[in-house]
Parts: sequence; structure tokens; C-alpha cells
Amino acid sequence: MGPVTLLTDFGNQDGYVGMMKGVILKINPKAQLVDIAHDIQPGDILSAAFVLARCVPYFPRGTIHLVVVDPGVGTERRALAAFSNGCYFVAPDNGVLKWILSRDGEAQVVSLDRNEFFLNNVSLTFHGRDIFAPVAAHLSLGKNFTGMGPVVRDYCVGDIGLPEINKDLIRGEIIYIDRFGNLVTNISAGSLERGILHINILHSIITHLSRSYAQEPDGTLLAIAGSHGNLEIAIANGSAARQLDTKIGEPVIVRLKSGL
Amino acid sequence: MGPVTLLTDFGNQDGYVGMMKGVILKINPKAQLVDIAHDIQPGDILSAAFVLARCVPYFPRGTIHLVVVDPGVGTERRALAAFSNGCYFVAPDNGVLKWILSRDGEAQVVSLDRNEFFLNNVSLTFHGRDIFAPVAAHLSLGKNFTGMGPVVRDYCVGDIGLPEINKDLIRGEIIYIDRFGNLVTNISAGSLERGILHINILHSIITHLSRSYAQEPDGTLLAIAGSHGNLEIAIANGSAARQLDTKIGEPVIVRLKSGL
Amino acid sequence: MGPVTLLTDFGNQDGYVGMMKGVILKINPKAQLVDIAHDIQPGDILSAAFVLARCVPYFPRGTIHLVVVDPGVGTERRALAAFSNGCYFVAPDNGVLKWILSRDGEAQVVSLDRNEFFLNNVSLTFHGRDIFAPVAAHLSLGKNFTGMGPVVRDYCVGDIGLPEINKDLIRGEIIYIDRFGNLVTNISAGSLERGILHINILHSIITHLSRSYAQEPDGTLLAIAGSHGNLEIAIANGSAARQLDTKIGEPVIVRLKSGL
Repeated sequence: MGPVTLLTDFGNQDGYVGMMKGVILKINPKAQLVDIAHDIQPGDILSAAFVLARCVPYFPRGTIHLVVVDPGVGTERRALAAFSNGCYFVAPDNGVLKWILSRDGEAQVVSLDRNEFFLNNVSLTFHGRDIFAPVAAHLSLGKNFTGMGPVVRDYCVGDIGLPEINKDLIRGEIIYIDRFGNLVTNISAGSLERGILHINILHSIITHLSRSYAQEPDGTLLAIAGSHGNLEIAIANGSAARQLDTKIGEPVIVRLKSGL
Repeated sequence: MGPVTLLTDFGNQDGYVGMMKGVILKINPKAQLVDIAHDIQPGDILSAAFVLARCVPYFPRGTIHLVVVDPGVGTERRALAAFSNGCYFVAPDNGVLKWILSRDGEAQVVSLDRNEFFLNNVSLTFHGRDIFAPVAAHLSLGKNFTGMGPVVRDYCVGDIGLPEINKDLIRGEIIYIDRFGNLVTNISAGSLERGILHINILHSIITHLSRSYAQEPDGTLLAIAGSHGNLEIAIANGSAARQLDTKIGEPVIVRLKSGL
Repeated sequence: MGPVTLLTDFGNQDGYVGMMKGVILKINPKAQLVDIAHDIQPGDILSAAFVLARCVPYFPRGTIHLVVVDPGVGTERRALAAFSNGCYFVAPDNGVLKWILSRDGEAQVVSLDRNEFFLNNVSLTFHGRDIFAPVAAHLSLGKNFTGMGPVVRDYCVGDIGLPEINKDLIRGEIIYIDRFGNLVTNISAGSLERGILHINILHSIITHLSRSYAQEPDGTLLAIAGSHGNLEIAIANGSAARQLDTKIGEPVIVRLKSGL
């Protein structure tokens, strides 16, 4: 089996990630643990879903991705394990796997209900430690995924928010904002190949695509095909999020060059 | 031997944790390093002690816990190694081990004074790197714990702050505040089994225990048996610490149902 | 080969570090990954260079140090691999290796230009993932360093900012500020052995060296031979950076005792 990754909104102050790592190593002392990110904003399922989807392709087959952004812990929301494109996922059924599962018609998903794979005393407030971490550890030992619970098909995939494309006009939106204040849109870089006339965001207009952040003078608002493969709005050597005072969901409109 | 965990107030910007990891790997290239938390507030010994105590039970026997929250570095405070319940601890003698040592009458503790287990040049400002990390590394190689210094019994355990219980009244306090703004009290969930009449904190009254954070409408002040096994005060989908503007030490008073 | 360390300004929220780790493990599943620091301020090459230089001596020979603080990604700045004092370095040619390379006349440096060591599709915005991480992974497999590109000698070392020493007067400056608000100067502790008369920073005067932060009453402005081996200015149990409201580059002037 591959490494076990951890993606949470637990930060680095309370030891919640540490507890989960302890649980995993107690079950599988040879597990290879890899942190993906832990400073997801508390309860921000959408950002976690985005970060996960962008990281997964870079990991080897057999990786077990443990995702705990779980504001609904202790309610009726299910706990899931999934198998998709050669990797495993362990996460609450709250949409955090939406990018993974909505794009893979052959994904297998089970609802975790066998308590022999859980800690002995399952709390109502920390399933990351009591359910998800031990399940991930058992998977990393090669335990049979399909034996962990009944198959489900009605898992949460939510709205994956594709842009609206209408001839030469693309209506997209900001779907992620990173540490650098770069604004990632849901508009794929590939859809811009014909060339752009202009991009609108709030009251600003951008008239060409830049090749790199540093190519423009400091402080310039720019558009770029970002490392996520999507159109990004950025400020050269600055933070577009701060300067535009924008947020997730903000519309971004692209006028393409005419197809003629 | 088990993994070596690291718990510090060093954050993630200066490389202080990185230096300690380098020191360990130079002595034991096969050491398995696990971060517990590094964003403890600078010098906050009490929070580090709490986080450590809550994480330890989830780690395997033989784990070596390296704890460096050490505002008194360079003074006469001793450097300790301890063995308790099958695990090792390496830390300054400043109370950071108080929950571990005060509850284990059979703990063995030595004062680290053999410089063959230290780096060659011990600074007066960074014993985490120069003393604690190399000692942890030597322990992870199976070096004999008792040979590392003289046994001591007068180590610092401080006040572990138990609540005052008087018939139907429990006077406790906030002992830890986590990233989510949840207020952890020193009142064990078990002591509430008889049922509560009400809980007072500042000018607020809570009249029942909730089962999960998400069970109540957003913004509700709630009480819950938290994942630490203690009574917690929280705000559904919000931060109780911010909304109540409270801090460590704030009194929490519980009126239990009459025992009749 | 030794461990692969990671030092970036990527923080812990976006998964950028996670992606690089995935890339490395896909190429070398047995790579031992060690985080040095990820909360370098975005684009702060000088601080990253300082942190790197201070950590490197504590790591074993054969360690591969992967450094990605890369505001110029996508411009003409080169991508480098270097070998110095038994360790490897993979980083942009922007000065982040200046302390390593300026002090080692025998360092070997190559400009990375063989795309068989890169990911298949190299973006213009994230060479950490597409170039530096895979090169580090190939080095960790023992691939031949010198085969990775042509030798270069005109790499960026910038100004390493030594202090001006004039008889009994040393004119230095703040070169690094850590999480605790301690101000690290470029004045080596060794240069103060003759004893000091006074130290000037902004409008404050310090008249002796302290042995530890905790030796002075809380709130005292103090000078100390810090763990980096340099003169540091600190506040006992406080933050000198906040209290003095100072920044990198601030002059620090030391008057030594007369040599007579």
C-alpha cells in the first residue's frame, strides 16, 4: 500500500492531527504519513474538496487519502470510504470528495459501519480520530475495502460549479483563494485557447493573459493559466484577494476572440 | 522503539523544528518523526501540557515524546527524561509533563546531565536542539534511559487544577481553548452522568447537554461532552472563545440534578 | 542517500507542499521527507536563505535540501542543483542559496535543463512541483548530480551583508526576525569576546550581554549570543520586534571594550 495522507482543518496547535497519527501508527507502525494541508479554514468543505482534488493526481497509486473537514460530526451524515483511480479515500459524506467522485463513474463507495475497524469508544465529536484514522490505518495494512461497509450510491457530490459557456462568453466564478491571494476560477485554461478579448472581475478589466506572475510590473492585476490548470486572477508581487477585496463565488466573465 | 513525536511552540517559519529533526536523523537515520503540534502560543506551558496529555494515550508503547516549550531555557531549570506507561518523555522541568507525571505514581524520571548524549556545543538559548533532541534520538536507538542521569523525585508537577465538587454543585474552569474556539473545562464528562440543571459561564446559562456541535442552530451557545472526555462549551458553527471573549481560568459552574 | 527536506513559503492551507511530496513519493516511494519550514513570508528570499543556512549543519551528509521560495517563477531565472559540504540543494537561482554557496569555494552547481528529470508538463507558475521536486526525488534515488545540467559559476549569491568592523566599533544590522520577535543581527557572537561597552538599536542602549532570555525581569530589552551564533536583541518574555517596531535592515551598533 501507498502512503496515508492527511488533509484537515485542525491547524497545528491542538494536537488533533497528532492524535490521528498516533491512532494510525498504533494500528500500522509502518504507515508512511504525509501531510497535505491542515490550515483549511474551520468547516470550509469546498476549499478542502478543491485542495484534495488538485493534490490527488500527484500521488502514487495505492495512496490512502484521509480527509477530515467535518462540521457535521455527530449528526446523521455518513462516514465513507471510497476507491477511485487506484487510490483510497476516507472522509465524511459532506461533499469533501465531490471533485473526486463526480468525475469518476466507476468509483466504489462504502458507508463505514463495522465498528471492528473503529476505536473502542467512538465519541460524537471527533470521528477523525475514532473512525476515519483507524479505517485509513486498516486500509494501509491491506484490509479489504469492500468489507468495511455496504456499498452506497447516493453519496454527496453537491454542485461542482462548471462555468456557463455561451459562444464567445464564459461566465465563471472564483472557486478558491490561496495563501498568496491568487484567485482560482472554475474556467479551465484550455477553454481560453482561442484567445481572449477581455476578462471582467468586479470593476476591473484584464485584456491579456500573462505567462508568469513576475512578468508584469509589481502591483499589476493579471490573468494567468495557473498551476491548477484553471484561469487565475493575481496581482504581480501582491495579493489579488486583498486588493480586490473579493471572495469565493465572485463572478468572472471572459469574452473570447471571435471563432471566425 | 516507537516513533519520536515533537511538540513545541516554535511555529513553522524559523526552521527550529527542522533543526531538531536534523539533529535526530544525524544520530538515528531511521527515526520515525511525527509532529504533534508546533503552534502552541510562545511560552504557554499549560496548553502544551494539556495537548501532550491528551495525545499520549493514542500513541503506541515505546513512543518517545519530545516536548520543547521552554521559556526558562538557560536558567537553572533542569532537563528531564521520564518513562511512564510504556512511553518516554524528554522535556524541561517546568510543568509541561504535569498531567503525565502527576497521574502515574510509578513514573521514572531522570535529570539529564551526561553530555555524551548532548550536542558538542550546548547553547544557553536552544536546549531543544542541543539537549532534548539528541537525547530523544539516543532513546530511539534503544540507549538505556536510566543511564542518562540521576533519578529525581522533586520534578515540577504544579497544580493540575481539579474542579471543586460540593453535593450538586461543580465549580470548574476553562483549562484549554482550541483552534475552533471550543472551551475545554476541567470537569470530566463522567461527573455529569446524573444530569444537569444548568451550566453557568460568564453571564450565560446553558440548560442541557448537546450531543454534537451541529445538532443546534448556528450561533447557539452549547455544552457538550467533548472529545477530550471533558465538558466543553462551544458555539454551533462558531467560536465560543471569540463570542464570549473569555480566557483560560474562567470559572464554569455546573448545577447537577439532585441525587434523590 | 539521506532525507529530502522541504523549505517553502507555501504555508499549510493550499496543498502545494502536499503536491510536491506526492511528486517525490511517486518517483521514490522510500524517500524520507522532512519539513524545515513552510511559513516563510511569501517571496521572502532573504529569510529563507537564512533559515536554510542555519539548519543545514544539523542534517546528515547526503541530505537533499529542496527550497522553493520562488517569486520569479516563469521568468528567465534558472533552476539550480548544487552540491556543497556533502549535501545537495535544489532551488531557484534567486539568492536563496547565497549563504550556502558564498562560503564554499568548492561548491558544484548545475543549471537544471534535462526535462527527463521534470514532470511531463512543466507549468510556468509552479516549478516547485514540476521541476524542483522531481529533481530532488531523482537525486534521492542516487541519480548522478552532474548529469542534470551544465555547470554554472555565475549563480546568484547577492550580498551576504557582513558587518563593518572599525577598531572598537561594529556596525551591523538586523538580518532575521523569528516567531518570538527575537532580532538576529549579522554580528557574530565571537566578535564580542573582548566585552562590550554598549549596544545601540534605534533609541535604545543595552550595556551588557545576558546569558539567557529568562535571566532578566520580564519586559527587559536584552542582548544575547543567540542559538544562531549571532548577537540577538530580545525582550525577556516578550517580543522585541513588536516593542521596538523594527524590521530587517535596522542598524545595530556595538561599542567594544578597548583592546588595551
